[in-house]
Formats: sequence, C-alpha cells, structure tokens
Amino acid sequence: HDLARIWKNYYHGSFQANDVELNKLGIHREGNVFIPKSSYGIILEKKLQPLFESIYKEKKELATYELVWEIGKRLEREKKKEESIIYWAWKNKTYVFVPGITDGAFGFQLWFFWQNKHKDFNINVLKDEQKLSELLWKKIRTGALILGGGISKHHTIWWNQFKDGLDYAVYITTALEYDGSLSGAKPKEAISWEQINKKARTANVICDATIALPLMVASLKERKVI
Amino acid sequence: HDLARIWKNYYHGSFQANDVELNKLGIHREGNVFIPKSSYGIILEKKLQPLFESIYKEKKELATYELVWEIGKRLEREKKKEESIIYWAWKNKTYVFVPGITDGAFGFQLWFFWQNKHKDFNINVLKDEQKLSELLWKKIRTGALILGGGISKHHTIWWNQFKDGLDYAVYITTALEYDGSLSGAKPKEAISWEQINKKARTANVICDATIALPLMVASLKERKVI
Amino acid sequence: HDLARIWKNYYHGSFQANDVELNKLGIHREGNVFIPKSSYGIILEKKLQPLFESIYKEKKELATYELVWEIGKRLEREKKKEESIIYWAWKNKTYVFVPGITDGAFGFQLWFFWQNKHKDFNINVLKDEQKLSELLWKKIRTGALILGGGISKHHTIWWNQFKDGLDYAVYITTALEYDGSLSGAKPKEAISWEQINKKARTANVICDATIALPLMVASLKERKVI
Amino acid sequence: HDLARIWKNYYHGSFQANDVELNKLGIHREGNVFIPKSSYGIILEKKLQPLFESIYKEKKELATYELVWEIGKRLEREKKKEESIIYWAWKNKTYVFVPGITDGAFGFQLWFFWQNKHKDFNINVLKDEQKLSELLWKKIRTGALILGGGISKHHTIWWNQFKDGLDYAVYITTALEYDGSLSGAKPKEAISWEQINKKARTANVICDATIALPLMVASLKERKVI
Repeated sequence: HDLARIWKNYYHGSFQANDVELNKLGIHREGNVFIPKSSYGIILEKKLQPLFESIYKEKKELATYELVWEIGKRLEREKKKEESIIYWAWKNKTYVFVPGITDGAFGFQLWFFWQNKHKDFNINVLKDEQKLSELLWKKIRTGALILGGGISKHHTIWWNQFKDGLDYAVYITTALEYDGSLSGAKPKEAISWEQINKKARTANVICDATIALPLMVASLKERKVI
Repeated sequence: HDLARIWKNYYHGSFQANDVELNKLGIHREGNVFIPKSSYGIILEKKLQPLFESIYKEKKELATYELVWEIGKRLEREKKKEESIIYWAWKNKTYVFVPGITDGAFGFQLWFFWQNKHKDFNINVLKDEQKLSELLWKKIRTGALILGGGISKHHTIWWNQFKDGLDYAVYITTALEYDGSLSGAKPKEAISWEQINKKARTANVICDATIALPLMVASLKERKVI
Repeated sequence: HDLARIWKNYYHGSFQANDVELNKLGIHREGNVFIPKSSYGIILEKKLQPLFESIYKEKKELATYELVWEIGKRLEREKKKEESIIYWAWKNKTYVFVPGITDGAFGFQLWFFWQNKHKDFNINVLKDEQKLSELLWKKIRTGALILGGGISKHHTIWWNQFKDGLDYAVYITTALEYDGSLSGAKPKEAISWEQINKKARTANVICDATIALPLMVASLKERKVI
Repeated sequence: HDLARIWKNYYHGSFQANDVELNKLGIHREGNVFIPKSSYGIILEKKLQPLFESIYKEKKELATYELVWEIGKRLEREKKKEESIIYWAWKNKTYVFVPGITDGAFGFQLWFFWQNKHKDFNINVLKDEQKLSELLWKKIRTGALILGGGISKHHTIWWNQFKDGLDYAVYITTALEYDGSLSGAKPKEAISWEQINKKARTANVICDATIALPLMVASLKERKVI
C-alpha cells in the first residue's frame, strides 16, 4: 500500500458496502477504505516489474531489508516519494525487516517476476535473521512501538530476548488477552520470555491505532520532543 | 509448539501470574499456558539441529512445504508422533505453507543451523508461491477454515483470487471488524477482492477458537460426518 | 420478551438487514432476531392492561418481585406458560428483582396503565431493597451466575457486600476489563468491595452467553448434576 | 460518584492490583481507580442522610428527576459544587432521569433512609415516565450522545420512538454488535424500532469514552462551537 499510494489514490468508503456490487465496479474494500483495481494490482504490476528487473541486474540475492532499500532508492524520481515509508527507510538507512515478504500483492509481484525467467533471483530470508542477530547481540538499548499484532509483533519481541530484552515497549492494539493469542498478549507476558526486560518501561494501549497514534504524535509535538 | 510437545510437556497456568517470578523459575508464559524452558528452546535445539543436518545432506534448497514434509518424515520413530500435525501432513501429503517461516523458535533454529557453516542451505519462499499458483490455477473447489487472523489468514484468501474465489469459508476469530484490520475482516470483504466467490457459503464465528472448534468437531462426529 | 414469546413468535434474521426496510414491514430487529410489531408492543398492550387491572383490584402497592409473581400467577391458563421464566418464578417462589422496572415495553405498559386513571397504583422500588436486605443479612451462602453486565450485574453483587460477599460467582460476558466499566470488571475487582468473598470460587467466562451457557448446562446434565 | 467526589478524592491505581490486599487497606477498586472507603460509603452516609431529611420535610413523593434537582439545590454551599453534574442539572433545570435509582451506593442510602422511620417517603418512578412522555410527545428535535450501553442507553432511545425518532445520535461504546446485546447495537438497529429517525445523522464510535469524548470536546472548542 505504501507503494500503490504514491502512484494512485485510495478512497474513504464504508464497512457496510455491498461487496458484490463493489466487485462489479472493480473496487476492493479494506475495512472502510475503497481501492479501485487500477490503484492496486494493475499499477503495482506496471511499476514493480521493471523495478525488480533493475535490481536483478545488480544483485541476484537479497535479504528483505536490502530489497526494501533497493526499492526506496529507485523511488528517488517519484513526485510523491516523501509520502513513502520505504523511501525514507532507504534515505535514513533504517532497517525494515519483512518476515512475511511473499504475502500479498508485493509478494505476488515478486513471485511473478521470479517465475518469469528469473529463477536465480533469490530472496534470502535467513540473511535477515543474520542481520537481526548482529544488531541485537550488540546489547544496545532497544525500544519498540508495536501497532497491532501478528508476525511483526512477534518477530520484533522475539529477537530482543537475545540481548537482555526490550528496554521500552509500547503496544497499541485492539486485540485482547483472553484468547491467549500473541496479538493480545500484554507486555508482562514477554517478560517471562526475557523479550522485554523486567525493568523496562512499558505500556499497553487498547485502542484503534488510527486514534491513539495521532494523539501520541500530537502530544510529542506539543512538548517539542519531535 | 507442535514439535516441542511431542518431546516435552506444557502446563496449564494463569494469565495473572507474576512474569518476573516465572522468568526466574525458567518458565515462559503464553496466555494461561506455562512452558518450562527445558520444554521449548533447549529441546528444540537438541532435536532440530541433527534433523536439519540430515535434511541438508539430501537437499540444499527447499520450499517451506517441502521442509515441513521432510521433518514429518523424520518423526516416524517418535513415540508421540501421532499427536503431531507435521507428522500427519507428511503422512497424508497435505501441503503446509509457512509464509513466515523465519519467525519464532523454529525460524531461530533454522537460522542457527544456516549461519553455522551451512550458508548454502536455502529456504526458497518463492517456490512455495509457485506451488500455490499451480494448485490454485487448477480451479478446483476450495474451502478454508481459518482460525484467527494475521498472515496465515491473508495468504490463504489471497491466492484464491486467482481461481474464482473460495467456495466455502469459515472464519473463527476474536478479532473485530471496526478497526479495519484484515484479522477482523468479515468474509464479505473478501468478496470485493474475488478472494471469496460471491456465491460461496461463508460463516464468521466470533468466538475463542478453543471453544468453537471442539463444538464444531463434536457436532460433525455426532452426525457421523467425520 | 419472556411474556411476548408465550403469546407470539420471534424469528431468526440477520445483523446486516436493511433497517429502513424492516421498519416499513413492521419488523423490529434485535441483533439477528426479527420481531414483528404484532408480536411485541401490540400483543403486550392487549394482554398486560387487563392483567394489571386484575392485580390493581387486589393490591395498590407492590415491590417489583411481587409484581413478577402476580403476573406469573396469572399465566396459569396460558398454553405455553412453561416456557416462561416469570411463570416458574411464581411457581417456585423464586425472587426476581427488577431494579430498572420502568424501562422498555413492560415499563411502558406499566406507565400506560398508571396514567390512565390508576395514579394510586404504586410500584415501590424501595420495598425490593428491603427484601434484599432481609435476605442478604441472613448470611446464607450465596452464589451468582451473571450473564452480561449492566444494572443486573451490579445490583446482584452490590447487596452481597452486606453479608460477607458472594461465596460463588460465575460471570459470562463479552464485555472487557480495559475500559474500566463494571460490565467488564472481573470477579477480583468485587473482592476489593467485599461483594465477593476473598475465599469464593469464581470464574470469568469471556464468551457469548448463548454459546457458553448451553455448554455448561449440557455438561451438568451429562454429569447428572441437574 | 458525582457526589462523593465533591467531598473526597479518588486515586489513580492499577487493574492488576491485588484486591485482597486492597480490601485490607480499606480501598475499593473500580478498574484502575482506587477509592478509599472513607471517600465513598462513609462520606455518602454522613452527607446524604441529613440531605434526604431536609428534602423529606418538603416533599413526601418525588420522581427521580425531582430528587436529582432537590439534591443539586442543596449543594449550593459546597466548595466544589461546580464539579458536580447534579449541581449543574439543577442550576440549568436540565432533566436527569435515573431509571435504576435504587442501585448502588446512592440507592442504598435512599433505602437506608426510607426503612429508618420514613416509609412514607416515596420515589415514584412512573412519574418520571410521565414527564418523559410529555417531553417526547411534543415532537421537538432530539439528539442523544450515549456513552456506553445498558439501561441508560435503552431508556433514552426507547422513548424517542413516540416522537418520530431521534434526529441525531452518537454512540460511544466499547461494546460490540456480534453478541446481539443492546449495549453493542449500532444506530441502524434503532431505526427498525423508530427510536432513531431513518433520516437522522448518526455515528457509532467504538472507542473508550475517556479517549473519544475529550477529543470531541477539544475539536468543538477549537472550532469555537462551545
């Protein structure tokens, strides 16, 4: 989505929309966001295939964090590049690890490229882990701001057990603890795994991230912290 | 966990437990399940490293579904093998795709093996996608029983858009729709993506899967369906 | 509803129904239950007004538990009386206290009767409290099975602080703790109020009561407890 | 609580507190709010009994909205009166209807007063309904801002069916629709009951009211609406 939106627009829709009708109109629904097909699969294919080709010419094997940077670098000429997280990740040399890289439209484009006469193009997911292990075993102070749950939450806290745990952790989620899921698990659970340090400062915010995060950012701005 | 539990036991604990104390005792907490360290990381390392070595001798590159089968095959001599889903997946040649293979204790063991003089051992996640594309483009009838959300939910419905959508879908989840997440999205949303066929029979069960699934299985047994 | 359903039927509908259309058809929606107007307000008026008249002739002032019994007694000739909780409450002399008696269709009928030349008909809600205080100060063993939250949950646990707290408490609810509401409060909170005894056996079941309660009853039947 | 807090303080505590310990210390817990006994039952008894006596001397029968005003009037000399909603209700002659008046600490004090030689003191809950019917049958434009669910939500929307439904409705709640409860019911359900007008402007905000309401008020202030 980060990429699709620098090329095309998404729209504000409704949860109650008739999805059979939307489909006829060529519109995908994500919650209350409407995404025309032309703003998603079609534009991604048109833009990503040549971009992968260009990367492929330079490197045959990449970790996902390297792939993210290579894409970010190639957004330099895009008019709306400054709205892209991927672009800024490259610009600031921020590591972005994607443990589930093959999922979704991006993963599909990746596979589409690979099976089309580029079978020696290799996404080496273990190389990501190698980089994570190097970063974490340096025992630097670490903090995590985690929106939602799933694999990105788990992968983040997982690696921190190999230093002495996260020093700061803020979870913002609507998932709840009672079903025993990792998505709803509170910071204290991670202490039993040494994924969060027992002296860490933590907060568990049960709220839609689209409400909580802007509030937090506004507060930091007001206090001139950012 | 599927593997750890054929070798060691987990225990019934409590959500309210003091996680600092648990950590001192060498116990991990997952919701209200207590897992002694000796039943998890330690046993996994002891068992998985030789197992990977044995696989490595035969193949240097595997998709995740192939890796799952190779492990299942090597559980043949385990006393509690029949409690393992991985074992049955191999036995019945059921495909198990793991889009986030590097996450968690299993992924860690995989990385640990790879970085320890086996850097030519390659988990080819795009080969999984290749197999998925072959399976789905056959336009067979498909159904999905999805427990929870996250990447496994999305990856399952994603690929079904390339046939004419799932013909049956049952979601069992505690995640809710209002935050716009995929985890809480109802089956109707997937219709706008053609991931579920507009004529499909679907159900969205908002309930802890550990309550709902046994009920469903009991009902099927009573009706002699399974 | 307990009364309306012994006289008329309700139907299984859908959450997604178009409520403007339903309204045109004279159908009320309660979640996924459809209630024709003729099965609700109209039948309640037709049946309750003469019933109140009959009670009024005998008593001019009643507590809500007395009102419930008087109604139960007058259901004796109804064909479907055995499906009514109110009927069984009278039959077994079980106290039913209704702290919010004026709410809803029943309360409306009560007001309608009162304003129509029966202004000396008095529902004495403090007399209910008197009875509760007598019952609770006997220090009998008490247990509560609480479905959902709201005023009925609070009123139940409230009075138990005047003995030494509930000895048993099972909450079945979908409400959650994080917002600080009483509806989502766990049994342990009530211990700080002495509403539940600190030695009490308690359980907090986070599940739709229409799933959890039948399971519990089935289990008790299987064990021949009921 | 509105009353207790003008006389005494409440404190910010924690959900995870040990409630047995709190009880020993004489502290009640409400979510993450700590309330010393001296700030609740004890002060309420000391203040409310003479206050009821003073009201009793003037009137022997009151609707709940009249009782609220009589109390508000008697807060005139309290130093922190301006923090009390009850005080402002009286000052501005705003009707406050309390369909569950006998519940909780206030109801307990009311009963305590009544049984102690004031059995002719009558809270006439049907008189409240009379006032509601007069107000609603005037067919004025009505709007409702509803925090949470329960009896106050239902009573509010219920009476609006006797005009042509609410013209505006904003629900702020953490309760969810799927269990079929009224607390989680969306505005559209009320349209099938004519409790909300089909042309009404409505919003359903799924968020902790302590987050959403301040945001809404801040926004109105910024736009100089209030």
